Amino acid sequence: MSGSHPRHGLDDVIHAPVRLSIMAALSAAEKAEFRFLRDTIEVSDSLLSKHILTLEEAGYVQVEKVFVGKRPRTWLSLTDDGRRAFLDYVSVLKRLTEGLSE
Amino acid sequence: MSGSHPRHGLDDVIHAPVRLSIMAALSAAEKAEFRFLRDTIEVSDSLLSKHILTLEEAGYVQVEKVFVGKRPRTWLSLTDDGRRAFLDYVSVLKRLTEGLSE
Repeated sequence: MSGSHPRHGLDDVIHAPVRLSIMAALSAAEKAEFRFLRDTIEVSDSLLSKHILTLEEAGYVQVEKVFVGKRPRTWLSLTDDGRRAFLDYVSVLKRLTEGLSE
Repeated sequence: MSGSHPRHGLDDVIHAPVRLSIMAALSAAEKAEFRFLRDTIEVSDSLLSKHILTLEEAGYVQVEKVFVGKRPRTWLSLTDDGRRAFLDYVSVLKRLTEGLSE
């Protein structure tokens, strides 16, 4: 069913709570380091990796690995598509939670 | 993990898109008839019934069956708990989608 109710426009990739948290965090920053994101969102390394992979495959998040001396660092940022998708998501959510009045 | 990130406060009962749509629709009305809700949200009878049961079991939605002549009518409304839970949900969502800035 591809009807007109706003819920049809709710992006499943973003709606899952951990991914929503990742998208929201990244939307507020240019880029964020993996461990910073993990500590902020309060998830395990493995869960964060799993959800980032889903977001990367959707083309929403860009993953950049760099070395600082011998220490690897993983930087994450929203792609342009990701930023657009997040804004769309928030706007659909807003329409949805405003109820029937439309 | 029961940390401080807003996502921990996101009510799973409400977060599922169809239930979120039901809660939003009912929050905008005193009460709504089953078929009206079904047509608005664009779900099947069985799917709507299933999600309403979940919301009823959570104490968020009240179901009232009345007869108009021989025709049964099912009226749905938010309970006080449901209304509070929906407002909480929307406020958590707002904090979440505003990103890290807090």
